[in-house]
Amino acid sequence: MFSLEKNMEISLLFDFYGQLLTANQHTAVELYYNDDLSLSEIAQDMQITRQGVRDLIKRSEQLLYGFEEKLGLCKRFNQVELIMRQIKDDANKIEQICNNPEIASVAKHITTLADNLQD
Amino acid sequence: MFSLEKNMEISLLFDFYGQLLTANQHTAVELYYNDDLSLSEIAQDMQITRQGVRDLIKRSEQLLYGFEEKLGLCKRFNQVELIMRQIKDDANKIEQICNNPEIASVAKHITTLADNLQD
Repeated sequence: MFSLEKNMEISLLFDFYGQLLTANQHTAVELYYNDDLSLSEIAQDMQITRQGVRDLIKRSEQLLYGFEEKLGLCKRFNQVELIMRQIKDDANKIEQICNNPEIASVAKHITTLADNLQD
Repeated sequence: MFSLEKNMEISLLFDFYGQLLTANQHTAVELYYNDDLSLSEIAQDMQITRQGVRDLIKRSEQLLYGFEEKLGLCKRFNQVELIMRQIKDDANKIEQICNNPEIASVAKHITTLADNLQD
């Protein structure tokens, strides 16, 4: 039994690997996950059947999971995010406990660098 | 005119996107770029012509550049590396100028986090 779950995971994988999908796959996933259209609305938009849309999205999901299984880049970027948050916590801690303006300024610079990366 | 340049760039792209190549493309690029075999040696290994190897590698290079053009993940990871180096410089600076062991310890933790990410 096939169920389409609109989940964050697919949206994230789509951000990373969406450009590797065909134009039709890309459109269907974008309308479904990012623009939150229903299968019927997408079918009308793309002038294909509702089942056609369902197949496109199902195939795209398989491909996106496959890309991540092969490349693991989404997982690596999640690790970067996690470590950046820890580094920012550390930098904040330094800013709070130090009473040397030079050190506070360097700690603030670390926070700025980490923020830039997360943008 | 086609020239094969053994460059760092291809090796880096291969690290990121190599798993998206076919088995034959993957083998040819690995033997040529990572194991530094000649086209003739690879031809013998893979039991195909030297021209066949050349074509495989040329096609793989095009694909690898194409993946990067579409996804840009190699570029994003290079930015992570660059920012991590800057954060480590900052953390070192804090360790050097502070005379508070608690701050020194948090700064050292930042360095450890940044090192973990670069592994």
